Amino acid sequence: MTHPDPGPTAEVRSEVLGAVAYGALAAFSRLAADARRAPDLAGRAELASLAAAETARFERVRDELAGRGVDVVDAMAPFVHALDAFAARTTPTDWGEALVAAYVGRTLAVDMVLAGRHSDDEPAAGDLVDRPDAGTGFDAYAERTVAALCVDPRVHDRLGLWGRRLLGETLAAASKVLDAHPAAASALLGTTTRPALFKALKSRHAKRMQALGL
Amino acid sequence: MTHPDPGPTAEVRSEVLGAVAYGALAAFSRLAADARRAPDLAGRAELASLAAAETARFERVRDELAGRGVDVVDAMAPFVHALDAFAARTTPTDWGEALVAAYVGRTLAVDMVLAGRHSDDEPAAGDLVDRPDAGTGFDAYAERTVAALCVDPRVHDRLGLWGRRLLGETLAAASKVLDAHPAAASALLGTTTRPALFKALKSRHAKRMQALGL
Repeated sequence: MTHPDPGPTAEVRSEVLGAVAYGALAAFSRLAADARRAPDLAGRAELASLAAAETARFERVRDELAGRGVDVVDAMAPFVHALDAFAARTTPTDWGEALVAAYVGRTLAVDMVLAGRHSDDEPAAGDLVDRPDAGTGFDAYAERTVAALCVDPRVHDRLGLWGRRLLGETLAAASKVLDAHPAAASALLGTTTRPALFKALKSRHAKRMQALGL
Repeated sequence: MTHPDPGPTAEVRSEVLGAVAYGALAAFSRLAADARRAPDLAGRAELASLAAAETARFERVRDELAGRGVDVVDAMAPFVHALDAFAARTTPTDWGEALVAAYVGRTLAVDMVLAGRHSDDEPAAGDLVDRPDAGTGFDAYAERTVAALCVDPRVHDRLGLWGRRLLGETLAAASKVLDAHPAAASALLGTTTRPALFKALKSRHAKRMQALGL
């Protein structure tokens, strides 16, 4: 009789959830700051809604961790430095960059967390993550607004480069975090591999960029 | 046969909801900015949760207005200037001030909107407003943290003055908004009067300040 793979330990699961929690809190801060760049109330309200969705995600993960007897602040601590450094390297400088970052950046983050979800029966990080734009109209708003900004070909080119830079920065930051937390990385990846994950991220990023007209 | 008071018109109701919507969006911006002053992750998460609750309130009012065929952006526009001016006059300069503002300021805003709720059978602004700290642990967190800051008597005195200044600024801003929108003011007040409302606000503010040890 063979034993099934016991899967990641409780400690490792909590480590992954800590990364997801701080990712959500950092995304809240980014989106809330970007909301202030909005040229009008409609745009400000769109980013405020996205920011609130990140807080809701944070709260779900916090409650899940609490149910395991783990304090969310302790679980997040190991990821603060790397994710803050990533945020500092990817701070939008104007409204167009903020919209592109919100549109493609969130997809990248969510895809990463969902990567290993089929490898594992226990409800884990993936189930605490909702798809971007779940129930909100942000995608349509961003597509419309970025298209309007891109009538200026210089803006189109600049935002295209920005979107590609975001992919590069994300993969670099993800590599660093996965290297620093090998057990969590293996729990996150499940039955997939890092190159396969990165390939999937690149492919989805290209589709999202195309949907934005970039 | 006498006709019952028809109550405020649909236009006036939408005006009140516009003020509530922008109040919530402005509160989101304030709390999100204050979250960045937090000295630790726990405090940052507390204010992020409050900010998200304001966004949820904004979304409920937005949806209610949409159901009446009114765009939330149009409804908010008349209140932007006055509420932004209020926000600029009451920007916290440190973490203690941010906590006191979140603790007493939200009570004031919510009490104001709830003022006329018994005067009216139709679900209106009051029903779209939840009590502060509904389901979150913010009140307890703020009381604990402010008490710890107030072991320094200079901080205690300064935060006490700050809390009282917030009351004054709130009543002054409320007077201005009520004067500028008489029909909405009368819909908001319902069967109460402005002096009675302000008296109730002062009394509740005193209780909240006491609960904070100020």
